[in-house]
Amino acid sequence: MATVSPLAPAAVPGLPPLAGVRLATAAAGIRYAGRTDVLLALFDPGTSVAGVLTRSKCPSAPVEWCREKLKSGKARALVVNSGNANAFTGKSGREAAKFTAALAARASRCKPAEVFLASTGVIGEPLKATQFNGVMDGLVAAAKPGAWLEAAKAIMTTDTFPKLATASAALGKATVRINGFAKGAGMIAPDMATMLAYVFTDAKVPAPVLQTLLAAGADRSFNSITVDGDTSTSDTLLLCATGAARHKPVTGPRDAHLKDFRSALDAVLIDLAQQIVRDGEGAEKFVTIEVVGAASARAARRIGLAIGNSPLVKTALAAGDANWGRIVMAVGKAGEAADRDRLAISIGGTRICERGGPVPGYDEAPVAKHMAGRDLHIAVDLGIGGGRATVWTCDLTHRYIDINGSYRS
Amino acid sequence: MATVSPLAPAAVPGLPPLAGVRLATAAAGIRYAGRTDVLLALFDPGTSVAGVLTRSKCPSAPVEWCREKLKSGKARALVVNSGNANAFTGKSGREAAKFTAALAARASRCKPAEVFLASTGVIGEPLKATQFNGVMDGLVAAAKPGAWLEAAKAIMTTDTFPKLATASAALGKATVRINGFAKGAGMIAPDMATMLAYVFTDAKVPAPVLQTLLAAGADRSFNSITVDGDTSTSDTLLLCATGAARHKPVTGPRDAHLKDFRSALDAVLIDLAQQIVRDGEGAEKFVTIEVVGAASARAARRIGLAIGNSPLVKTALAAGDANWGRIVMAVGKAGEAADRDRLAISIGGTRICERGGPVPGYDEAPVAKHMAGRDLHIAVDLGIGGGRATVWTCDLTHRYIDINGSYRS
Repeated sequence: MATVSPLAPAAVPGLPPLAGVRLATAAAGIRYAGRTDVLLALFDPGTSVAGVLTRSKCPSAPVEWCREKLKSGKARALVVNSGNANAFTGKSGREAAKFTAALAARASRCKPAEVFLASTGVIGEPLKATQFNGVMDGLVAAAKPGAWLEAAKAIMTTDTFPKLATASAALGKATVRINGFAKGAGMIAPDMATMLAYVFTDAKVPAPVLQTLLAAGADRSFNSITVDGDTSTSDTLLLCATGAARHKPVTGPRDAHLKDFRSALDAVLIDLAQQIVRDGEGAEKFVTIEVVGAASARAARRIGLAIGNSPLVKTALAAGDANWGRIVMAVGKAGEAADRDRLAISIGGTRICERGGPVPGYDEAPVAKHMAGRDLHIAVDLGIGGGRATVWTCDLTHRYIDINGSYRS
Repeated sequence: MATVSPLAPAAVPGLPPLAGVRLATAAAGIRYAGRTDVLLALFDPGTSVAGVLTRSKCPSAPVEWCREKLKSGKARALVVNSGNANAFTGKSGREAAKFTAALAARASRCKPAEVFLASTGVIGEPLKATQFNGVMDGLVAAAKPGAWLEAAKAIMTTDTFPKLATASAALGKATVRINGFAKGAGMIAPDMATMLAYVFTDAKVPAPVLQTLLAAGADRSFNSITVDGDTSTSDTLLLCATGAARHKPVTGPRDAHLKDFRSALDAVLIDLAQQIVRDGEGAEKFVTIEVVGAASARAARRIGLAIGNSPLVKTALAAGDANWGRIVMAVGKAGEAADRDRLAISIGGTRICERGGPVPGYDEAPVAKHMAGRDLHIAVDLGIGGGRATVWTCDLTHRYIDINGSYRS
């Protein structure tokens, strides 16, 4: 395990239990003996589920499985293993997924189609799903409401800290809870990332509504982060709603009662997404890129991601260099409408260029001080429209190369 | 100046004179005193010109100048400076471009609209074009046919070696010459790269025909390379045809007499493009990515570039790791049609995966030996169509980060 990222949050939040969700972890020996590598989550009957999956054209077997099973909108169990991605494993991969779902369904007394799967780790090596035989009954027996931290740790690969977030929301007269955990930390890019994130709530929300809320929230969170611009074959974000809370029925995604829930869900998704960036491989600086004045929100996000993905920008940030020339370059290459003579860039709140050139005599001292810090802020105003977006990224350091030159993922 | 790239060609080719082109270089003190930083090329009357320019939405002032002047298809002079990119310099940048063209036109007795410009170096600092006052008359007086190597050196920035290429071609009963030189070496990505490339021929080819040939050749060369996926504000590729050679008039881009010329032009463009990759910042391995079986040639190129741009692939290559899982990942993220179960990947000629998984028991020894070398070959067969493309890239090393964490471009 590598040293904890210098960008890790000061403390891991404690997550309260959530009615209808039980969790357990075990060491199934998928890749390493004695390492916790499998997570089982069990959901009470009536749990609805929504998901956002990788757009990779070569998805893993579990991603294909989830895409199919999401159609029903019902979930009773979730099995996640680390150590092996079950990706590019052909027919044996599909069989391993089917075997795992059947095993979990039998042990937890539900249908295989209600079991959701994810695998993360090495690509192209067959997943020995029979390894789950020895642990599945024990997982079901041990599953308990409060095991969030253990769950978050079980799915880690190159992550240096567990990623958890929680929020509560008023829904009618009830207060509902939203808990989530996630893993990064390489191949982090929109659509989506080698990223697994599981979010749970005791709210009672029909699956189609849940799907609408999740898709919108994912765009503002997991699809607005990038570590290296690479997209995994296995990215999975699931949102499970157990319905244990007692509140007025939700009528649709625009139900006014959902306002606070939507905000809280977005906050949890953004918190988890930011933690993934804070654990980006080799990251030493957390960078917020705020784009305003673009032709549309979509254009703003694409421009933000072009900046956040640029190796030239990221190496400059690693060196503490406020190299706005490279930011201009990245804006230019995004392919979205831009006008050099209207573009303005601020770093750490100091306007350093505008109207087609550098601001004459701007004060470099606060910029240099800001650049020496851990949390950087870049603001870009295109000056041509009302589109805005915020994107988060990290710098590109020697450690990224060290990590990815040795870890076979 | 950094150590010469380990991937540099064994020898710099000697370029013969080319009728109708004269070259001179000087030290104008644009950024550093005493460093050669300006190139003047003079063309005989009747020279036609074609160009491919950056697609950046924030292009430099010289790029805007060239885009406008290319419409006439006539060139008499070219002025290129290093040290300052005259990009994101607003109104003063446009004035500096205009001033430079007027100065060169006066000294070489042509129209300002027949003068082409390029600037490379720092972005966002005003170009002191008046510095050219002191050298322009001397440049015109000194211009001579054979100064190719000096010209190639004058436009270098972070390049570690000068990049030149030459070929001859039969055109009717005449033999024509094609000479070219280029610079890299960061922000190298298609559409295009921080890349300046100038190619000259004594063939007599009308500007519209020249433009068609150049655009097609650029797609197979400069638009098929990538170092870091970043695109500069200043990329410029020009092709000037002096028409000094005596041959049958060219009737159009599909004129059968042009067959050999087209091949020779492509060879020069590919040679220069490959040299840019060989001088990619920090590059230690030159990588050829051959994609076949894609839905179309365009899809094949996009898949090749997705592989060539992936930081995870590039760090694995740097470490000599035949990590085909990351190649699968990159194929998947390209967004083009792919079928995991038909995909096949070979490295160094050894088929290592096919039909949705690794080739059982393939011989790892020749693959490991290949990966330890300087020139790597990755072949990807999508197995779904007839589209093919070849893309060239380099690995991502610690030196890339060192170079880009200190050089302000």
